[in-house]
Amino acid sequence: MIRKADTICAVSTPAGIGGIAVIRMSGDKSIAIASICLTDNKGRRVDLKDHKATFCRFVADGKLQDEVVATLFAAPHSYTGEDVIELTCHGSIYVQQKLLLCLINSGARMAEAGEFTQRAFLNGKLNLSQAEAVADLIESRSEAAHSLAISQMRGSYAKELELLRQELIDTTALLELELDFSDEDLEFVNRKKLTEMIDALAEKTKYLIDSFQAGNAIKNGVPVAIAGHPNTGKSTLLNALVGDDRAIVSDIAGTTRDTIEERFTIDGIEFRLIDTAGIRDTNDSIEQAGILRSFRAMKEAAITLYITDVSSIDADEQLSQIVGDKEIAPKDIILIRNKIDKLSQKESLTILTSKTINGKEVTVIALSAKEGINMDTLRNVLVEKARKGYSKEAVLLTNTRHYEALTKMCNALEEVKKGMEVQLTPDLLVIDLRDALYHLGSITGKVAADEILSSVFSRFCIGK
Amino acid sequence: MIRKADTICAVSTPAGIGGIAVIRMSGDKSIAIASICLTDNKGRRVDLKDHKATFCRFVADGKLQDEVVATLFAAPHSYTGEDVIELTCHGSIYVQQKLLLCLINSGARMAEAGEFTQRAFLNGKLNLSQAEAVADLIESRSEAAHSLAISQMRGSYAKELELLRQELIDTTALLELELDFSDEDLEFVNRKKLTEMIDALAEKTKYLIDSFQAGNAIKNGVPVAIAGHPNTGKSTLLNALVGDDRAIVSDIAGTTRDTIEERFTIDGIEFRLIDTAGIRDTNDSIEQAGILRSFRAMKEAAITLYITDVSSIDADEQLSQIVGDKEIAPKDIILIRNKIDKLSQKESLTILTSKTINGKEVTVIALSAKEGINMDTLRNVLVEKARKGYSKEAVLLTNTRHYEALTKMCNALEEVKKGMEVQLTPDLLVIDLRDALYHLGSITGKVAADEILSSVFSRFCIGK
Repeated sequence: MIRKADTICAVSTPAGIGGIAVIRMSGDKSIAIASICLTDNKGRRVDLKDHKATFCRFVADGKLQDEVVATLFAAPHSYTGEDVIELTCHGSIYVQQKLLLCLINSGARMAEAGEFTQRAFLNGKLNLSQAEAVADLIESRSEAAHSLAISQMRGSYAKELELLRQELIDTTALLELELDFSDEDLEFVNRKKLTEMIDALAEKTKYLIDSFQAGNAIKNGVPVAIAGHPNTGKSTLLNALVGDDRAIVSDIAGTTRDTIEERFTIDGIEFRLIDTAGIRDTNDSIEQAGILRSFRAMKEAAITLYITDVSSIDADEQLSQIVGDKEIAPKDIILIRNKIDKLSQKESLTILTSKTINGKEVTVIALSAKEGINMDTLRNVLVEKARKGYSKEAVLLTNTRHYEALTKMCNALEEVKKGMEVQLTPDLLVIDLRDALYHLGSITGKVAADEILSSVFSRFCIGK
Repeated sequence: MIRKADTICAVSTPAGIGGIAVIRMSGDKSIAIASICLTDNKGRRVDLKDHKATFCRFVADGKLQDEVVATLFAAPHSYTGEDVIELTCHGSIYVQQKLLLCLINSGARMAEAGEFTQRAFLNGKLNLSQAEAVADLIESRSEAAHSLAISQMRGSYAKELELLRQELIDTTALLELELDFSDEDLEFVNRKKLTEMIDALAEKTKYLIDSFQAGNAIKNGVPVAIAGHPNTGKSTLLNALVGDDRAIVSDIAGTTRDTIEERFTIDGIEFRLIDTAGIRDTNDSIEQAGILRSFRAMKEAAITLYITDVSSIDADEQLSQIVGDKEIAPKDIILIRNKIDKLSQKESLTILTSKTINGKEVTVIALSAKEGINMDTLRNVLVEKARKGYSKEAVLLTNTRHYEALTKMCNALEEVKKGMEVQLTPDLLVIDLRDALYHLGSITGKVAADEILSSVFSRFCIGK
């Protein structure tokens, strides 16, 4: 996939009709191609100045195709590190298509998905994890997902891991040096220091690995199932949670069509709400099928909201059955005691508590979805559970590729430690250390096989 | 609607997710608002230079929201004539929404549809017909529609009309001068010259009025109905016409979803193809309903392709019935004699001819849709009929508002001529001349009532 010599071009703005669109071109021939297509108002060639927006005519086939604003970002001070020219044109599909075609006829070629960012990586403008963060940023739908992507783009944890990696490289090099002097039985590397370093690295890595579940859920939306017997108020609760938020999301045209499940955000975290059929004993086969789907939703959700009527006397028993069913095994349960508005004032209720049901710790919240009583308590608990104790500022792992790399690295580090315990020779320790280094380096692209690159950049949309 | 004092902002690129998006801000406070939101890499305020692209951090709520490229277009050298700042940000919906919100919180307000272009008009950067051409340009889907919009944007016929208008203004002023000297019976304006001028203006105007049907069809796609008995090859013809072209259109993601009918372009002109049910006598009520729709399609289409098998002996009779039916009355008919590939070689066929059927001139083409024989003849005839004899370079009227204004102007000019014939006094001639001037001026916005402005700019998408 890596063909750096070409000059590439693509529409970088979203597909469709808009007031304006931006066509991006990157490569050695960008300036030459632009000088073929662009003229000033009097038909003379334009001399684009670095970082300067210039009003031009785009002329092709002897005809004015559009009036554009052209901006040159000369190498190396551009997104890709190459000569980049951005053309802001009118946002009709015809114009976008026509100008692209003219650029291609003048010597550029269509960029593949992610190729601009790939060039930025290959030219050292971004490391691999930052490049991935760009894709995450573009896909981000909520404040939390956006913050995670921004922090990764700015290199947060990759930077820390990179420091540790450098230290590990130096140590490995010294160990390798010992190999050259193996006859002399010299020890260049203090084994105690090595152990400490590996422990520090393993600890940091494990923290990140553990944060993956929370990070991934935040990035993609935390799956929440709503379950419970019929007429306990599931739909009312769903509307109370989703209500206002949906209106905000649909402010921008074109967002709604992507929404398949009900989504809502609390405190910047996006939740994906999966409504389920009411659960009860039934002989109706269609209803049974619905209940089976309900069980599957609970199994797959990160959090299950189990709704009962506050006056129900067998709530614990219902939930006990579900907790005990290995086929369902909900991960994290909030038992909602709904309809407290119907209680007489005398009774005093604990709003938020927890109890153990069938060996599982369950959070219990008393509320009224209809009247909106104690809904904020539920929202706070949902956010807390989504973050699984990680603070808002914590670095969370969101990328499956990083998760796998870090897990493999951890395993390699374990091997090194085991090896040292049984006083393995340096040559064997080095093999595991190199393995750990490889996996650590693959995150930022310090060691990157072609297949890693392809899989990273194919995630992108064209034009980025 | 006209509130020039505010600073307005909007996403100007198409709605949705893309590599990048552009947020545009225009107004006196643009620079001040940008200085609130933008910092350099070290957190210092950035000093945007005119027409210079500057890499910035967009910071709000104490957090980095995105890394953007900001370009200032200082008044008056900007699209709107005001201080304009364009922010190129990452194209996630969250980022677009968030940055807009930050600008609004810092003192801007959301732009209404077309408000940027409206300001350009109010500040004298564009005349009204040019502003409308911007909207046409953005909506253009074919080369011909695009060329018409570009030529209107560059002021083509408006410029000519404006010259005539100036002459007419001068003449009217002289006529008004005669009023002041009415006691002395002076004639400042040579009546013969006035008649000539009015004739010239009327002729130009009538040419434009007549071109409206062709221009409007080219702008919106020329409606073509395909009709004929079952199994005459309607679908094959449709595929032969649409085939390759659709593949080109679907090169850009997101275009296809707008396509409701089959569209294809020939020589840059877009045609909208309306396939219809086969026509035959039937008792099946569903089929009858289909045939009624078929008749309606022919009635509404600019061109009807009536397909028959070349071996059919009652083709003329079928068509004669349809031509004679006042409820159908197809405007322009091409009789297709399909399946000539099945004929033995001996027979010699005229490819293109015309005949009169039931009093209507009908073009007849012999071809084979299946084998692609003589399809180019059909394409040429379609283009010729779409242009109705207007050359490719001719100025065509495309805008309904202009059509109405020019028609009213023409009527007023007729009144002036009639008045001169019966030797009306100058005071009465001036009334009709002023009326003609008003309608002519309303096209370019020289005289523009508020309601004209509102209706012009509400066509735009937000952000332009």
